[in-house]
Amino acid sequence: MNGAQALIRTLVASGVDTCFMNPGTSEMHFVAALDAVPEMHSALALFEGVATGAADGYGRMADRPAATLLHLGPGLGNGLANLHNARKAQTPVVNIVGDHATYHKQYDAQLESDIETVARNVSHFIRWSAKTGEVGTDAADAVAAAYGPPGQVATLVLPADISWSEGGEVAAAKSPAPRGAIGDDAVNAIANVLRSEEPSVLLIGGTACRAEALALARTIADATGTKLLCETFPTRIERGAGRVPVDRIAYLAEFATTQLEGARHLVLVDARAPVSFFAYPEKASWLAPAGCEIHTLAGPADDSFFALAALINALGIDGDTATRQQLARPELPTGELTAQSMCAALGALLPEHAIVSDEGNTSGLFAAGCTAGAPPHDWLCLTGGAIGQGLPVAVGAAVACRDRRVVALESDGSAMYTLQSWWTMAREGLDVTTIICNNGSYAVLNMELNRVGADGAGPKAREMLDISGPDLDFVALATGMGLSASRATTAEEFNDQLARALATPGPSVVEAVVPSIV
Amino acid sequence: MNGAQALIRTLVASGVDTCFMNPGTSEMHFVAALDAVPEMHSALALFEGVATGAADGYGRMADRPAATLLHLGPGLGNGLANLHNARKAQTPVVNIVGDHATYHKQYDAQLESDIETVARNVSHFIRWSAKTGEVGTDAADAVAAAYGPPGQVATLVLPADISWSEGGEVAAAKSPAPRGAIGDDAVNAIANVLRSEEPSVLLIGGTACRAEALALARTIADATGTKLLCETFPTRIERGAGRVPVDRIAYLAEFATTQLEGARHLVLVDARAPVSFFAYPEKASWLAPAGCEIHTLAGPADDSFFALAALINALGIDGDTATRQQLARPELPTGELTAQSMCAALGALLPEHAIVSDEGNTSGLFAAGCTAGAPPHDWLCLTGGAIGQGLPVAVGAAVACRDRRVVALESDGSAMYTLQSWWTMAREGLDVTTIICNNGSYAVLNMELNRVGADGAGPKAREMLDISGPDLDFVALATGMGLSASRATTAEEFNDQLARALATPGPSVVEAVVPSIV
Repeated sequence: MNGAQALIRTLVASGVDTCFMNPGTSEMHFVAALDAVPEMHSALALFEGVATGAADGYGRMADRPAATLLHLGPGLGNGLANLHNARKAQTPVVNIVGDHATYHKQYDAQLESDIETVARNVSHFIRWSAKTGEVGTDAADAVAAAYGPPGQVATLVLPADISWSEGGEVAAAKSPAPRGAIGDDAVNAIANVLRSEEPSVLLIGGTACRAEALALARTIADATGTKLLCETFPTRIERGAGRVPVDRIAYLAEFATTQLEGARHLVLVDARAPVSFFAYPEKASWLAPAGCEIHTLAGPADDSFFALAALINALGIDGDTATRQQLARPELPTGELTAQSMCAALGALLPEHAIVSDEGNTSGLFAAGCTAGAPPHDWLCLTGGAIGQGLPVAVGAAVACRDRRVVALESDGSAMYTLQSWWTMAREGLDVTTIICNNGSYAVLNMELNRVGADGAGPKAREMLDISGPDLDFVALATGMGLSASRATTAEEFNDQLARALATPGPSVVEAVVPSIV
Repeated sequence: MNGAQALIRTLVASGVDTCFMNPGTSEMHFVAALDAVPEMHSALALFEGVATGAADGYGRMADRPAATLLHLGPGLGNGLANLHNARKAQTPVVNIVGDHATYHKQYDAQLESDIETVARNVSHFIRWSAKTGEVGTDAADAVAAAYGPPGQVATLVLPADISWSEGGEVAAAKSPAPRGAIGDDAVNAIANVLRSEEPSVLLIGGTACRAEALALARTIADATGTKLLCETFPTRIERGAGRVPVDRIAYLAEFATTQLEGARHLVLVDARAPVSFFAYPEKASWLAPAGCEIHTLAGPADDSFFALAALINALGIDGDTATRQQLARPELPTGELTAQSMCAALGALLPEHAIVSDEGNTSGLFAAGCTAGAPPHDWLCLTGGAIGQGLPVAVGAAVACRDRRVVALESDGSAMYTLQSWWTMAREGLDVTTIICNNGSYAVLNMELNRVGADGAGPKAREMLDISGPDLDFVALATGMGLSASRATTAEEFNDQLARALATPGPSVVEAVVPSIV
């Protein structure tokens, strides 16, 4: 068995049975080995950022890593932005990055570069596989590292000769490390904080945004008069009817500060103390009020459900008292198609158990509100701020959950970074409905240009934020990649087109022409 | 004056008056400062790989750097593959990478990452600008570093507060370092080698591929019975009627070995001794024959024209004896549209002083031959092997040379990495004609799969190299980005469409549906 086969078989043995790939010559033995391991599903992407973002979406929904297969340093570079997002999401991902044969590297051939420097930007685990006999072990180690906890990006560099040589051995799966448990003293200390009359905020994120943990968090908040908030861009939040609603901290620091106003204690559950997304002149970066004490109930490597349950016990709370969200959809909108009416239509039509990959940015501002009472669904956010994440994440979520409808709520500017995702959706026959909000603008930057207090910005600056001229025609773009697509310019058109798209198997695109809200 | 204005004014003072950009919030003060410096032309890209590849194309044609403006680590990551190509091309490029404000970095906000690790993969010069008062000096240093020689990628990281704070000072341009000159002894030693009866090859690359240097190289080769060859993927070669023709070393190591067969001496002029693009089992990586001595007449930092002229003197050659290429175009093809007939049409129609950005890959195999006798033109190659370079380089070349027609000879798979280039072509009204060869395949990988001796490759492996299903419709894709486009399926259609596209101001796309040649 050659190294490539040992690697793929070890991945499968370790529970990694999906690989999003964009291979080149140095990866050809990996590709050739795919036929020998039918358990490994390989999905082709036309751009590496699609593959890495898909692995992120897959990991968020499957709670286990997908692999990627990338072509040397430049391939990893093309995948870097979405690996950044995956890192910030704490999603488990296993990158396999092909490299030149070990003996070929000395010649500095055209594609030679220092892969490790690129990998370090995003990877907690980096290994350059040096012996064919150890590739299996390397792969098992990479998978274990990806599991964490917390989930992380593991990058295994695979030289071509290590891949093609005989002598590969399949390694057994390694058990992921257990999540940590908080000690009794720490739990009691936090219980005492919440029992005090001092204003407190319980801030959840990460694994604490799953439905069961959320119910515990709400129960604690209600019993102690604590305010419950969720981080701004959670990796995956389970929400909708029958689930426990929670407000997210606002993107705009001005509003976030208001949400946290007066808090003397901030208790973190797999979340980080909130900071401003960017720095702004004369505005605070640290958003908690002065003097607010930070307490950590569960860190990213801990079991947040266990920690919340321990806190419930320490507080002597008897049972789950969290109020669930009632089913309450908005009316189907009529008249003008706006960011708001578009989101109302989404709330009216979102299917049960849908997965929403949200990169709607300014146009999606009303989406969370409009879908709060929709049937239960998952919501996946832009965790690392590197746009071009929404469509790839939708690809991966749909591969992980073939029985569920995925909605990519996408904005025009962000879509253009990784638009090749549509082709993979068509290739794989994925049930993804893309709503593309076309306002012809990097609208968020128009807002930010004002917020950063940039004086002197005139027409030349504004032109750099304007992506009309030429107008992007997303119906043509989607058609060009084999998807059915339509354009809506009124609420009624949007309702009809979205309903049809959601009911049709396979991927399709609805372009919503909306005015910018900023 | 704030830091951003000082930076832009220094760039302009240093001869850098074009910036390809994809900015975000942390770059808003740079964007706002554009209105204050009308001499700086800013061109918006919808994806960073377009901006960096455009800077490469610009630098190749203008012989001076363009700037890029990128958004933190993920933005640099998205631009990395084409910066890799620029590095291998020895193109001068100045990256400005925005970063969080200095005091904001401690908070590890969503977009925080280690920019320097990413930059190191491609940059000879990296500086993190730490004081507003020194941003001007930093920029002048970056431009000087980009000039080299040889040309290189310089990356200046610009924290937001350094950019927005007052106290910026414009720095004077720094003189680029002079290119090196070879010593008399070394020239005489090489002259003696070439005077000997031993078989020798003169291998040119880089700056030695410009017309004047090429004529000297050919004169030397003719006078001494030396074989003249050019590296496989030169940065920019001046060729066509009235110029001196030269064969390039073949991509396939099997053929390259034949070209070099019997050589006892290899004399390098701004070129590197040829190595195989990839390693293949049981095949050599080093392509020069065993025992072949390597001599360097000019390294990448040297003046290759001066070195060749010195060698002419040492050899006592009197005057330029190089035979120039006659004007000799192929007939316009008829009948089936194939890779070969498509290239014949290109040779028949290529306008005088055109610039060809060649990423035609397998479908472009016949392009160099078919255009050898076309009117004088420049040919730009895939220097670093990271595909997705052809369209962005065409953008940059067209911005650098607004009075010339640019032809992007592009293949389907490669185009899809940086297809957003088309939008910038439309936005900027660039005279770029894209010929897109659609064979529905990563055809080069089908060839490579066999060449690497990958046994056991079956339908699953072949599927990873097949990009039909769904078929890509490049007419729809181009239309979606505001370009006029047409599809040709016969030679006659292609002739007509190409002629029309070449005669029409602004960008357009001709999709050539061709069978794969492999």
